[in-house]
Amino acid sequence: MIQQALYHMPETEYGYAKDEKTVCLRLRTARTDTPAVAVIYGGKYDFWEKRCRKDMVLTCHDRLFNYFSVELQPEDVRLVYVFELKQERQTFYYSEDGLTEAYDFSKAFYNAFQIAYLNGCDIHRPVPWMGSACFYQIFIDRFYRGDLDKDGSYINLEWGRIPNPKSFAGGDLKGIHEKLPYLRELGVNALYLTPIFKSISNHKYDIQDYFTVDPIFGTNEDFAALVETAHGMGIRVVLDAVFNHVSERCGPFQDVLKNGNQSRYFDWFLIHGDRVDRQAVNYECFSSCAYMPKWNTSNPEVQDYLTGIAVHWIQNYHIDGWRLDVSDEVSHQFWRKFRQAVKAADPNCVIIGENWHNANSFLRGDQYDAVMNYAFTKACLDFFAFGALDAAGFADRLNGLLMRNTDTVNNMMLNLLDSHDTHRFFTQVGENRVKLESALAVLYLFVGAPCIYYGTEIALPGGYDPDCRRTMDWALAERRGPTWRLIQRLAKLKREEPALGIPKANIYAEGNVFTLERGEIRLKIDGDSFAHVIERMG
Amino acid sequence: MIQQALYHMPETEYGYAKDEKTVCLRLRTARTDTPAVAVIYGGKYDFWEKRCRKDMVLTCHDRLFNYFSVELQPEDVRLVYVFELKQERQTFYYSEDGLTEAYDFSKAFYNAFQIAYLNGCDIHRPVPWMGSACFYQIFIDRFYRGDLDKDGSYINLEWGRIPNPKSFAGGDLKGIHEKLPYLRELGVNALYLTPIFKSISNHKYDIQDYFTVDPIFGTNEDFAALVETAHGMGIRVVLDAVFNHVSERCGPFQDVLKNGNQSRYFDWFLIHGDRVDRQAVNYECFSSCAYMPKWNTSNPEVQDYLTGIAVHWIQNYHIDGWRLDVSDEVSHQFWRKFRQAVKAADPNCVIIGENWHNANSFLRGDQYDAVMNYAFTKACLDFFAFGALDAAGFADRLNGLLMRNTDTVNNMMLNLLDSHDTHRFFTQVGENRVKLESALAVLYLFVGAPCIYYGTEIALPGGYDPDCRRTMDWALAERRGPTWRLIQRLAKLKREEPALGIPKANIYAEGNVFTLERGEIRLKIDGDSFAHVIERMG
Repeated sequence: MIQQALYHMPETEYGYAKDEKTVCLRLRTARTDTPAVAVIYGGKYDFWEKRCRKDMVLTCHDRLFNYFSVELQPEDVRLVYVFELKQERQTFYYSEDGLTEAYDFSKAFYNAFQIAYLNGCDIHRPVPWMGSACFYQIFIDRFYRGDLDKDGSYINLEWGRIPNPKSFAGGDLKGIHEKLPYLRELGVNALYLTPIFKSISNHKYDIQDYFTVDPIFGTNEDFAALVETAHGMGIRVVLDAVFNHVSERCGPFQDVLKNGNQSRYFDWFLIHGDRVDRQAVNYECFSSCAYMPKWNTSNPEVQDYLTGIAVHWIQNYHIDGWRLDVSDEVSHQFWRKFRQAVKAADPNCVIIGENWHNANSFLRGDQYDAVMNYAFTKACLDFFAFGALDAAGFADRLNGLLMRNTDTVNNMMLNLLDSHDTHRFFTQVGENRVKLESALAVLYLFVGAPCIYYGTEIALPGGYDPDCRRTMDWALAERRGPTWRLIQRLAKLKREEPALGIPKANIYAEGNVFTLERGEIRLKIDGDSFAHVIERMG
Repeated sequence: MIQQALYHMPETEYGYAKDEKTVCLRLRTARTDTPAVAVIYGGKYDFWEKRCRKDMVLTCHDRLFNYFSVELQPEDVRLVYVFELKQERQTFYYSEDGLTEAYDFSKAFYNAFQIAYLNGCDIHRPVPWMGSACFYQIFIDRFYRGDLDKDGSYINLEWGRIPNPKSFAGGDLKGIHEKLPYLRELGVNALYLTPIFKSISNHKYDIQDYFTVDPIFGTNEDFAALVETAHGMGIRVVLDAVFNHVSERCGPFQDVLKNGNQSRYFDWFLIHGDRVDRQAVNYECFSSCAYMPKWNTSNPEVQDYLTGIAVHWIQNYHIDGWRLDVSDEVSHQFWRKFRQAVKAADPNCVIIGENWHNANSFLRGDQYDAVMNYAFTKACLDFFAFGALDAAGFADRLNGLLMRNTDTVNNMMLNLLDSHDTHRFFTQVGENRVKLESALAVLYLFVGAPCIYYGTEIALPGGYDPDCRRTMDWALAERRGPTWRLIQRLAKLKREEPALGIPKANIYAEGNVFTLERGEIRLKIDGDSFAHVIERMG
C-alpha cells in the first residue's frame, strides 16, 4: 500500500456534517490500492467499550487516487473514528498517527479522528433551489435594449458591430424584462446579471453608488419590476457584488482625496502615506487600475457598510443571490460577517464567489456557498479545446474536482464554459458545434448549477474581453437553431430530473469514451469525434 | 517520484501569512524523494510575464514525508505560484493540476496556487510573551491553603492523603499568592489555573456563576490581588473558560427547569422536547453528566453572554489568557466571535483550546492561538513510557506534529507531559526519574510553551483522576531535589535563550540517539538508557 497516498482530515471536505445528524466521511488511497475499507466509529466518551462499524464505498477515482466514502448517522454526535483497511488478508488501521497494523482503542482519545460535535450554526446548509437551477449570465449593455425612450446619446456602438473596451450598445433592464419569456422558453430559471449599479463604465465593476441602478440601465423601479416579473415566471435573480474595490468617484474616496488622513473614511481604503498620491498610486487598487481603489475589508466599518448593501437588496428587492466579484482578495472575516447577515435576511439567498483557483478556505460553510467553477471550465477546455486530456483524463479531472469540496458545495457550484472574463468557449473550440454541444451536455449534467453566458444558445463567437462581450444577435436567436434546442432539452432535464439535483455522479471512461451518469441518465462522449449521446438507462 | 505524496494547499499550514508582507510556504514530498525544490512566484495580474524564483529548503522529515519550506516577501501580495522540482536531470512543475513535465504560464490564472491577498484581519498574530513562557498548571484545591481564617468545614481530605472524586483539601487563591516566590524561584512565569468560579465541586468545571470566585477559593478581591502580585513578579495568569457546559444550578438552567419552553433561556440549551426531563436527560450535556447541561453555542445570545464573561475578566482583572475547556465541542462561530472580542480587549491575551486531537480547523488564526498539545504528550509517552517509538520514530513524530500547524501556532502551543485529566507522566514511566527528566528536557526545548502540572518538580506520582490530583508535598518541595533544579535550569534556558522563542527546530536521530537542536542548544537522549545531555554547540 502506498502509505503516502492515504488522506483524511476531519472538518474538511473529507469529513463534514450534512445536517445535525449526518456526517459524511471520505478516505483517499492510491489509485493502485483498492483495499476493503470500513470506518469504526462511536461516541467520544465510550469509544473504548462501544463501537460501530460501517463499510465504505469506492466512490470514484482520479489520476492518482481512489476515494472511498460513507454517510453516518451516529447515535452520539460527539463522533470519534478510525479507518480499517483490509488488503491481501492483512488488516490495517488508519488514525491520526497514520497507518498501523494494530490499534489500541483504549488510547483512542489521543489519536482517533474526531468530529467533536455538530453545532447547528457551523453546518453548511444547501440552498435547495440551486439543485435545479439553470443560470443565464447577462452582460447587460450587450443583451437587449428595452427602453427606446431613454436618452441614447451615450450609445457609441451600433448593435451587431464588434465592441471595443469603451463601447456602449444600449442594453438595459427593460430589455431583459422584455426577454424573460424568451429566457423561460430556453429553460432558464436563474439570471446572473453583471453589475447594475451607478458607474461610468459599460461593465460597471467600478461602482459609484451601490444603492442606485445606473441610469443607462434604468431605475430602481425598473429593477424591482424585473425581479417581480421574473419571480412570477419562476426565474431567480442573482446580482454582482463588487466589494473588493469601488470607483474612485464614490463619496468616501472623494472625501479621502480631499482630506487625506483627516477624512473619516481614510481607513476605509489601504493608503500608504497620509494623503492619496494619484500619480504614484500609493494605495491598493484592483489589478493595476488606479480608478478602482480597494476597500479595506479588515475595517469593521467597511464590513458593516458593505454588508448593509447586501442586505438592502435582499430585503427591499428580494434578490436571490450574490455573485462576489474578485472575492478571493477580500478578507475572510468580512465574508463570514457577510454570510451571517445575508443568510439571516434570507437563508435561500445563494452566495457564489469568484475564485478561479481552489477556494477551499472560503468553502467551509462559513463564507460562500460555492464559486464560479473555472476549474470545471479549464477541464472542459483541456478536453474539448486544447487536447490536453483524453476521455479518461477528463473523467479523472472531473472526479478530482468533486473531491476538492463537500457535496454540499458541489451541488451549488456555478459551472460554466465561459463568461465575460474569458474567451467564448465556441471560439476556443475553433467554432466546432459538435464540441460546443457536447460540452454543454457535460455542463448541464455535471454536479452543480449550469450557467451559460448570453449568446451561447446561438453559438456567439468571441475572443478575450472586449470581444466576448459582443451584442446579442436576436435574429439568430429567433431561429431556435440546434444548439438552442439542445440547451432547451438539457435545461428541462436539469430542472425536472431529480437525480440531477443530488450531488452524486458516476464519471468514468471506457476506451476513449467519456461517460457521465446521474441516476438513470447517461451521457457518453466519443473522445475522437466529440459527438455525444444522452440515454436513459435501465 | 511518488506523486501521491506531493501536497500543498494555500491558506493552510502549507501556505500562510506570517505578517502583512511575509508568506510562508511548505511543500511535501515522499521521504524517499528529495528533489531540488523552488517556488516560482509573482503577482496575480502579471504572472504571465514577470516571475521570481526562490529555492526551498528541506526543513525536516517524518516517517513518510519530506517537508520543504520557504519564506517570501513578494512585491505584489496578490501572490500566485507554482513549484519546480528537479530530480535526476528532469524538471517537473507542481500546480493545482498536479505534477506535470511542462507548465504553461500563460494559463496560470486557471491552475497556479494562489494566496490572493494578505488581509490584516485574517493574519494570525503571535502573542509575543508565549515565546518565553514557562507554564505551571495548578489544580487549586490541592496546591496550598493560604487562608487559615476561612470556614474549613468543607474540607474532608487531610493534606497528604489520597483523594477520591469528592475530596476537598483546602487549597485556595491565597495559597497560590503565598507561593508565588516559590514559583518564581522554580522559573515559572505563567500560571494556568483550573476554574476559579462558583461551583459545588472540587474541580469547578460545573460553574454556577462566572462572575464570582468560589468562596472556598477566596474572593474576587483575592483574585485581583493574586494577579497584581503575579504581574509584579513577571508571572502571567491564564484562567480556565468552561464555555461548553455549565452547572445545572446556574440561573438560566434553573429558569428552564421551572418554565420549560416558556423560559427566555430555553434556547440557551439543547433540549429535545418542550420541558427538561431530568430522569430521561432529554438535553445535551457534557459527557454523560446530567448536572452539566451543554450551552447552545449556536445561539447568538449565548455567544454574547459567554463572550461578555471572557472580556469582563480581561478588562477588570487583567488576566493574560483563557484556556478553553472541551473547546472542540463548542461551535466555530462562537470561537470566532470570542476571539474578536478577546483580542480587541487585549491582543496579548492568549487563547488555548483543549482539543486532544488534530485541531487544524480551530487553528487557522480565526479561533484559538494554540491548543494543549496532547499529541506531544502522546509522542513522549510512546517514546518514554510505552516503548512504541525508538529515537528515530520519536524524532519523526515530533517533526510531523510541527508540520500539522503553522509556525505561528507551533510557537504558542501549550506543550505538556500530563495534566489533571491524565495519569501523571512520572507514574506512566514507572517512576523512572531518568525518563521523567529527559522528557522534561524535551518539553522545555521543543517549539512552544512548556507547561508542567503542579508537583512535577517533586516527581509527584499519580494514576488517572482523582489520583493525579493529590495534594502538593511542600516538605519535599522545600528540598529542591534534582528534578526541581533541572526544571529551574530548563526554565531559565527557555526564558533567556532567544533561539527557544523562535519556532525553528532541528530534530533527528543518529543510531538510537534522539537529538533536538534549537539555535546553539543541543539536547541528546540515548534511546536505550533514556539519559539526556544538553550542550551548547559551536
